[in-house]
Amino acid sequence: MRISLGSDHRGVQIKARLIQSLQANGFETLDEGTHGESSVDYPDFAEAVARRVGAGEAERGILICGTGIGMAITANKFVGVRAAPCYDEVMVEMSRRHNDVNVLCLPGDLIGERSIDDLVLRWLQTDFDGGRHADRVAKIDKIEKLNRDNLNGAHHDPLPTGPTVVDQTAT
Amino acid sequence: MRISLGSDHRGVQIKARLIQSLQANGFETLDEGTHGESSVDYPDFAEAVARRVGAGEAERGILICGTGIGMAITANKFVGVRAAPCYDEVMVEMSRRHNDVNVLCLPGDLIGERSIDDLVLRWLQTDFDGGRHADRVAKIDKIEKLNRDNLNGAHHDPLPTGPTVVDQTAT
Repeated sequence: MRISLGSDHRGVQIKARLIQSLQANGFETLDEGTHGESSVDYPDFAEAVARRVGAGEAERGILICGTGIGMAITANKFVGVRAAPCYDEVMVEMSRRHNDVNVLCLPGDLIGERSIDDLVLRWLQTDFDGGRHADRVAKIDKIEKLNRDNLNGAHHDPLPTGPTVVDQTAT
Repeated sequence: MRISLGSDHRGVQIKARLIQSLQANGFETLDEGTHGESSVDYPDFAEAVARRVGAGEAERGILICGTGIGMAITANKFVGVRAAPCYDEVMVEMSRRHNDVNVLCLPGDLIGERSIDDLVLRWLQTDFDGGRHADRVAKIDKIEKLNRDNLNGAHHDPLPTGPTVVDQTAT
C-alpha cells in the first residue's frame, strides 16, 4: 500500500517519524512536505495529499496539523477523498468501518507519539464494512458529481432526491 | 443568528433538545430532519444543512450523527461550507478561531448532553481570528472554485501555486 503524507509546521516532526515507522513496516510512502519548521499554510499540503489520493496515485493519505481540522476541511473538497480528524480508537475504527475514510487527519498538538502510532496502525488495519454504509458513501459520490458538474454552484439547486428511510433497526 | 440543524437517527433526540435550548437563547433554528428513530442515511441531512449554509440561508449549521465524521465529510463537499467533527473545548475553539468552521458536527454516540450543550455554546460564542488564518481559508475558497470550474476533475491538474512559506515564528 502506498501512503501519501503531508503536514504543516506543527506536524513536520511527527510526519518524519511516521514515514520511518511506515517504511519499516513495509508501506511505500510519499512525502509531500512541509520539510522545515517555518510557518506554512495547511491547505497547500492538504491539496498535495488529496490530489494524490483522488488521482489514485496513493491508496491512502495522512495529514498532520495542530488539530487536523483545517487539513480535513481542505482534503474533503477533492473528488474521491473522504478525510476526517480522528483523536481516539473509536473515531479511527468507525472512520474506516462506516465512512471508508481514505485520508486520516491527526491533531499533532493534542495527542502524543504513542497514541499517534497506535491510531495510524489501527486505521491502516481496519476494513470498510460495506453494505448499507457503502450505499451512504455512494450518496457522497453522487453529491460530488452533481456539485462538480454544476458550474453555477450546487447549493442553488433543489435537492435531487428526498431523504431515504432505510429500516427501523439498522444503525 | 439563524442556525440550520440536521441529524441522522443517532442524533434525533439531541437535535430536538438543542433546538429548544437554542430557541430559548434567542437563536432562530431550521430543523432539516430527520424526525424519527428510523435508520436513515446521514448524507441526506448533511446535504440539507450544507445547502442552507452554502446559500447563506443560515449563518451556521449543526449536524449530529454517531461520530460526526460522515456528516463532516459530506458537508465539506459543498462550496462555502467548512465543517468539522469536534469532541472537546479545544477543538471547538480552534475550529472557530483558526478555521472559521460554519458547520459543527457532533458525535452523538461519544459525548453526553452536558458536554454537547457546553460545546455548542462555546462554538457559537467564539470568533474567527482572521489575519494569517483568513489567508489560509482564502486558499480553501480558491480550491473550491478551481475544482468546481474544472469539469475534468481538479485532481488531474497541476498545482496552481507552490506551497507558501509565511514566516519563521507564526503558528
